[in-house]
Amino acid sequence: MMKLQRWLSRNQLFEQIVCKKAGHVGHPLGSHPFSSRVGIPDSRQNFTRTVGENASDRVYAAYSVYKGKAGLSMMPCLPTFTKLESGCLVIGRRGSIMLTFFPAIGERKYDWTKKQLFALSPTEVGTLISLGPRDSCEFFHDPGMLSSSAGQVRKSLTIKAHADGNGYFISLNVVNNSENTKNFLSVPFTAGEFSVMKTACSFVLPHILGWDQLKKPSPGMGKVFQPNKVDREALSLEWER
Amino acid sequence: MMKLQRWLSRNQLFEQIVCKKAGHVGHPLGSHPFSSRVGIPDSRQNFTRTVGENASDRVYAAYSVYKGKAGLSMMPCLPTFTKLESGCLVIGRRGSIMLTFFPAIGERKYDWTKKQLFALSPTEVGTLISLGPRDSCEFFHDPGMLSSSAGQVRKSLTIKAHADGNGYFISLNVVNNSENTKNFLSVPFTAGEFSVMKTACSFVLPHILGWDQLKKPSPGMGKVFQPNKVDREALSLEWER
Amino acid sequence: MMKLQRWLSRNQLFEQIVCKKAGHVGHPLGSHPFSSRVGIPDSRQNFTRTVGENASDRVYAAYSVYKGKAGLSMMPCLPTFTKLESGCLVIGRRGSIMLTFFPAIGERKYDWTKKQLFALSPTEVGTLISLGPRDSCEFFHDPGMLSSSAGQVRKSLTIKAHADGNGYFISLNVVNNSENTKNFLSVPFTAGEFSVMKTACSFVLPHILGWDQLKKPSPGMGKVFQPNKVDREALSLEWER
Amino acid sequence: MMKLQRWLSRNQLFEQIVCKKAGHVGHPLGSHPFSSRVGIPDSRQNFTRTVGENASDRVYAAYSVYKGKAGLSMMPCLPTFTKLESGCLVIGRRGSIMLTFFPAIGERKYDWTKKQLFALSPTEVGTLISLGPRDSCEFFHDPGMLSSSAGQVRKSLTIKAHADGNGYFISLNVVNNSENTKNFLSVPFTAGEFSVMKTACSFVLPHILGWDQLKKPSPGMGKVFQPNKVDREALSLEWER
Repeated sequence: MMKLQRWLSRNQLFEQIVCKKAGHVGHPLGSHPFSSRVGIPDSRQNFTRTVGENASDRVYAAYSVYKGKAGLSMMPCLPTFTKLESGCLVIGRRGSIMLTFFPAIGERKYDWTKKQLFALSPTEVGTLISLGPRDSCEFFHDPGMLSSSAGQVRKSLTIKAHADGNGYFISLNVVNNSENTKNFLSVPFTAGEFSVMKTACSFVLPHILGWDQLKKPSPGMGKVFQPNKVDREALSLEWER
Repeated sequence: MMKLQRWLSRNQLFEQIVCKKAGHVGHPLGSHPFSSRVGIPDSRQNFTRTVGENASDRVYAAYSVYKGKAGLSMMPCLPTFTKLESGCLVIGRRGSIMLTFFPAIGERKYDWTKKQLFALSPTEVGTLISLGPRDSCEFFHDPGMLSSSAGQVRKSLTIKAHADGNGYFISLNVVNNSENTKNFLSVPFTAGEFSVMKTACSFVLPHILGWDQLKKPSPGMGKVFQPNKVDREALSLEWER
Repeated sequence: MMKLQRWLSRNQLFEQIVCKKAGHVGHPLGSHPFSSRVGIPDSRQNFTRTVGENASDRVYAAYSVYKGKAGLSMMPCLPTFTKLESGCLVIGRRGSIMLTFFPAIGERKYDWTKKQLFALSPTEVGTLISLGPRDSCEFFHDPGMLSSSAGQVRKSLTIKAHADGNGYFISLNVVNNSENTKNFLSVPFTAGEFSVMKTACSFVLPHILGWDQLKKPSPGMGKVFQPNKVDREALSLEWER
Repeated sequence: MMKLQRWLSRNQLFEQIVCKKAGHVGHPLGSHPFSSRVGIPDSRQNFTRTVGENASDRVYAAYSVYKGKAGLSMMPCLPTFTKLESGCLVIGRRGSIMLTFFPAIGERKYDWTKKQLFALSPTEVGTLISLGPRDSCEFFHDPGMLSSSAGQVRKSLTIKAHADGNGYFISLNVVNNSENTKNFLSVPFTAGEFSVMKTACSFVLPHILGWDQLKKPSPGMGKVFQPNKVDREALSLEWER
């Protein structure tokens, strides 16, 4: 465990936090059998110990939906930027929205040690937010892609509209050929819960692309204003190679 | 009263402010019988006294709609964050959008002492903003849920489209079994007023979830850029438990 | 003029700026007879003199559409806040989106001295952004409402979809009974131009309501986390009067 | 080259960066033949040398889609503001969204030296984001407009929905009469990729207009609150010339 921890990046830290939870969580909202809640959904005894000193100034705000057989939690992972010697910033690792599925093991009890992850890319987020009330989609991931472990694990996420157009099933299927295991976790979303997901994903998509970080050029003082010249400049941008 | 005030949280402060108003408010827009207005809708003589020193830096900006039999005011309640010893922040109390209904007691006069509250959860907000022009929905709240007073008060909020698809009735029904009272307050919304509500709620939903608070990791200087390695890292996030 | 200037508020300053322009403006985009442009559309010689020292830190960014018979420029007017003794802020004057119509007096020449204004309220903005491709709406303003000059001037703004659903006419009709004048200014908007207007108005609507100014409560350090207690608190908000 | 560099504005710098890339880029996502990626898509050996000291604090975050025959990269160009002596800011050069097309020259290899640019104006962005799943549009640019080189180069961008409504072709046609060349670059977008483009463009449109830069007036302390007077003031804005 200690060795693994050395490699934990920011997003992995979050996952680390989630996966060290007690595993059995009473549903805090009580009498509603199916409901959704904001926040990290469990007792936090181990929380500070796991995170360590690297976690300062991190903010954890997940949107979670708890249903009878499984739950689904989602949280944006912002892109990382790399500062070049010139001082300008370029995107390092792209952003994503991390989906975490976890199975139920009793009434309002969930087992986080059996959670499964799926990181939505910007284009997958775009597909999700453009789904109409009767649309469906499916995404495939191979975490070992381009490496010697390619094909060992295959993940597929399906978002499938209810026949009445009033909600969706969001399901993750994970086939691990090396461990010879199959995992299927499915969470029904009401139209309202999916609307939260779409609205929050739409909000966060430009941030995942890094478009919220674009800087304004600082204005020059008392510069002579020459509209025609300026417009010519703008057009001439298209000339340059 | 003094005793109660000790327990006032941020949101309660706002309610406190609203409920101590004069109660009888002339409509400031004059000749329009049915209209809507931005801001806190009344004389503010008691305002500063009620708030006390805790209110510094608070901002109060409600969107209010005044109609013949009742009015409806709405304002977001942002989530609270708790700072852990590690320095990272987790959501404490979830955010909501507080709806305040108040009955009319004359032409453009409203009685704030008879107001009724309903706090929309993120999922309820998601349901609201996904309503089509002929859709309806209903939410049930029991403020005493999980306590000995469960079932004493039952609140139901209904949003019901006009038959012509050109607006909605937003109605709150409160049945108090212990006081043996029933309250029904209903406010017709034009399509334009509902559009303001939807647009403002869509804007505020990510803030209620705390997704606007996610921090960017600070970029490292002069780090060697290795795209393939980085993409492998991103994918490997899905491997970790 | 000097006397008037004493009373100029922020929005009026902007109007002041606009109305002192040269009046005859060549179209900077050249060969397109009908087009739209961002920015304040004219020579700016008188600009600095008019504004005076109060204008520091103001930003002027209008979206303008120029057509054959008239042009239309729009710019948000943010709400003003009033700081109470307690330190909390309440909305003073409500925000709006100011529309400025101006007639053409030749090929790509416009007469700003004959401009007409119409300030869209939040609910009117909500109506505008909810218009479907074949919808229309009309708003009426009486600037002298509630005063002795009520009824002297009547303004009506109409937004009327083209029969083919591929754009709109935005028209302002101003009847001034005391001066016995009638003014009618109409600007055809393409679907793309109206889409800019809708997107920009949707963006700015929460700012006009002041909802972008809501402050986050600062988090307490090391507070014991009690999820059930917290959720009870959240629900109990609805109990309070 | 050195001489040219003196004239490089911010946006041109970005183009400069892009065009000095190695030109032949292996696709970093490996086994997906058609996919999209966030970030600047290539080895960055020459990056720091090209940018120079002017680039400090610049942020480069493009959304790129790579397909079999060509790729398309897009990035917002924010407007420039000019500070007047009075201290207020006005928009100098308008903002845009720069599209960069580049041809494929092999499997997952692209030739950036043959890239073609097209800067979407705010109204063109508005048209793009209002396209329905079966709509199409076309824009024409002449970079030499209003100059002696008018008509030398003609660019047309077409966005054409797939017959099944499940995506678009985005194509750029450039006819250069002086060089007697024709270039046609076309990139198929899935519904999900176009949804990213629409969402990101909607987010960025108010920034391109400069509407995110509007300042709030600072509130006065302890000002007496007179709602009726204030509302009269708001209405009277429409009176002023």
